[in-house]
Amino acid sequence: MSDFKQFNSVEEILKKLSGGDYEKVRQVIYGNAVGKIDVPNSVTTRAELSNIELQTWSVPCPEEQLRPPRKIRLGLFQHKIPVPTTSRIDDMRNAMYALARDAVELAAGGGVNVFCFQEAWNMPFAFCTREKSPWCEYAESAEHGPTTKFLQELSKQHNMVIISPILERDETHGDTIWNAAVVIDNHGRYLGKHRKNHIPRVGDFNESTYYFEGNTGHPVFQTEFGRLAINICYGRHHPLNWLAFGLNGAEVVFNPSATVGQLSEPLWGVEARNAAIANGYFTCAINRVGTETFEHEFTSGNGEPAHHDFGHFYGSSYVAAPNGSRTPGLSRTNNGLLITEVDLNMCRQVRDHWGFQMTQRLDLYAELLTNATKSDFKQQIIGNY
Amino acid sequence: MSDFKQFNSVEEILKKLSGGDYEKVRQVIYGNAVGKIDVPNSVTTRAELSNIELQTWSVPCPEEQLRPPRKIRLGLFQHKIPVPTTSRIDDMRNAMYALARDAVELAAGGGVNVFCFQEAWNMPFAFCTREKSPWCEYAESAEHGPTTKFLQELSKQHNMVIISPILERDETHGDTIWNAAVVIDNHGRYLGKHRKNHIPRVGDFNESTYYFEGNTGHPVFQTEFGRLAINICYGRHHPLNWLAFGLNGAEVVFNPSATVGQLSEPLWGVEARNAAIANGYFTCAINRVGTETFEHEFTSGNGEPAHHDFGHFYGSSYVAAPNGSRTPGLSRTNNGLLITEVDLNMCRQVRDHWGFQMTQRLDLYAELLTNATKSDFKQQIIGNY
Repeated sequence: MSDFKQFNSVEEILKKLSGGDYEKVRQVIYGNAVGKIDVPNSVTTRAELSNIELQTWSVPCPEEQLRPPRKIRLGLFQHKIPVPTTSRIDDMRNAMYALARDAVELAAGGGVNVFCFQEAWNMPFAFCTREKSPWCEYAESAEHGPTTKFLQELSKQHNMVIISPILERDETHGDTIWNAAVVIDNHGRYLGKHRKNHIPRVGDFNESTYYFEGNTGHPVFQTEFGRLAINICYGRHHPLNWLAFGLNGAEVVFNPSATVGQLSEPLWGVEARNAAIANGYFTCAINRVGTETFEHEFTSGNGEPAHHDFGHFYGSSYVAAPNGSRTPGLSRTNNGLLITEVDLNMCRQVRDHWGFQMTQRLDLYAELLTNATKSDFKQQIIGNY
Repeated sequence: MSDFKQFNSVEEILKKLSGGDYEKVRQVIYGNAVGKIDVPNSVTTRAELSNIELQTWSVPCPEEQLRPPRKIRLGLFQHKIPVPTTSRIDDMRNAMYALARDAVELAAGGGVNVFCFQEAWNMPFAFCTREKSPWCEYAESAEHGPTTKFLQELSKQHNMVIISPILERDETHGDTIWNAAVVIDNHGRYLGKHRKNHIPRVGDFNESTYYFEGNTGHPVFQTEFGRLAINICYGRHHPLNWLAFGLNGAEVVFNPSATVGQLSEPLWGVEARNAAIANGYFTCAINRVGTETFEHEFTSGNGEPAHHDFGHFYGSSYVAAPNGSRTPGLSRTNNGLLITEVDLNMCRQVRDHWGFQMTQRLDLYAELLTNATKSDFKQQIIGNY
């Protein structure tokens, strides 16, 4: 297991295949090849100094005759917690801010227009512990909290939309806590927020102990760099959640996550990519990386002895395109910044080509789903053994 | 391209990696390992003589305390057309029947309980030509046609449920044609049919020239070997179609297909597998194999010169489990029979573990889909640039 945990990436292993073999496998499992983009040497050097893996890709897209290209650069950042979980909350958060500033400045150097962090990016993923204190102290106002204020400065300075998934404190509704993503526009203005729609109850993901299912619907954020949405973590297992963002007009859907283990890792490359294909938009899968250790032991409901860590967050962040192609993943082991240039025009091009939206028959499913919610729902079953 | 067309399988190439490297890649891209099952030597020998690739797998599943295991064997058959498309319709069909008999008998020797053919299995996939004659002559009654009668004998003889995707002729509704799958139970009785819900308009898939969107809903067939459903070909691109079979109680959903080309091949391993994960059932992806050549040239709407073939059907049939693991694929180049033993109890086990059904929030989506079908639908968009 520890050996399994530590290998860097599938791509690194596949490259050991001979050129022809590698290309055949790559084409089948990853789709049409993505290209490389150049970033200034200063950016590459700084990434090395900061020990942040930097990958820079572009997704090829044909030009059209009537619409100019709408090329944007997406920045996905995956990171470990920089200081131990036994540190003070404010010390941990400040260490996160320092790392975040580094990453956003790197991204700015690489021309990123829209930047997204992992889920609950400014804190350890402490929900495994089921301890309310001190972890609930991280919860803050989406509109006016310190993290939003901190990022507003950065976004304004770098002309960059920043998506900031945090633990939200809702003081006007009984001090409730939410798992939310805050969207800050490229002028440093708070644009809005989305609350996680689907909350897990599996393994160490004891999140339902802390917060409820989101009540913000499926908002799509119209920005200068396209229509963006956020499907937070466990929502990626729900095709209806992805579909809803598509119906509301999303061109890029971010999936900031925190996920571990051999059970979820084989799903990681499938779900966000399937969503890109089915809905004709880009998806950005971002996973936390590293192993987080907590002071007090806890159990995982799986018969194993009490222990101090959640398991290994395997990183592997990637971007998937509407045509089913995808970038390589960031490593399974290190902090990393994935910069990907995409042309949003590709969404409509692929929708025209495949016709999944035209052939969707929404009316059929609206009726079925409505029936299926009723307590006297009769399944359509033929035969009786 | 011709080199790309001809390589046998991704799995064959991956096996060139050293043991440790192979296992790491396999675990990440295919999930928990499947096991092997033994079939009699006579079956293996006969498969070799018939030039049918035989793969036999089992998906491990823990035993429960209250429910006995519900192990069944699924048989997926992919095949080329055995005689040229310039042959007479009855000669082609008889050649298909001979091949089918061979495959079903092989499957019976391997203990298969439920057998499924590829889409429109008893004919060339001639819809690329847009010629109505002679291809429409293949259409036959689902209930009383020669293909159903032929398979009823086999199913009774071998105690096997057989799913038979054919071109259907509906004489009682204006002689209309449908793309349908007929389900014959293990006593040789016609159990019912399902008509393809989503019809493609892409590339050479000119199927909307021949038949309309299905009007049979999303039936699930209750058999002695579990609750089965069929999502025909292009319906695999529609998460709602998969979802509907799940809502109606399916435990295994077959996806008999006919698909070609580098554009769809990277999607092939993603879509049926994502459906298995999201819906907590087994999926069986079956693709036609080989290149079919037609007498009269046709164009493909892609700027290329007129030509005589549809491209290469890349086979690669596989079974995906609710936990996201999958079998290797059959080859990209040859006739093949994939026998997979599964325990249907796994569906509920995985649903209990992940909780995707419990956390589904159908009411939210029933409302959204209902709104989205209206002509005055307002997308939930925040911001206005």
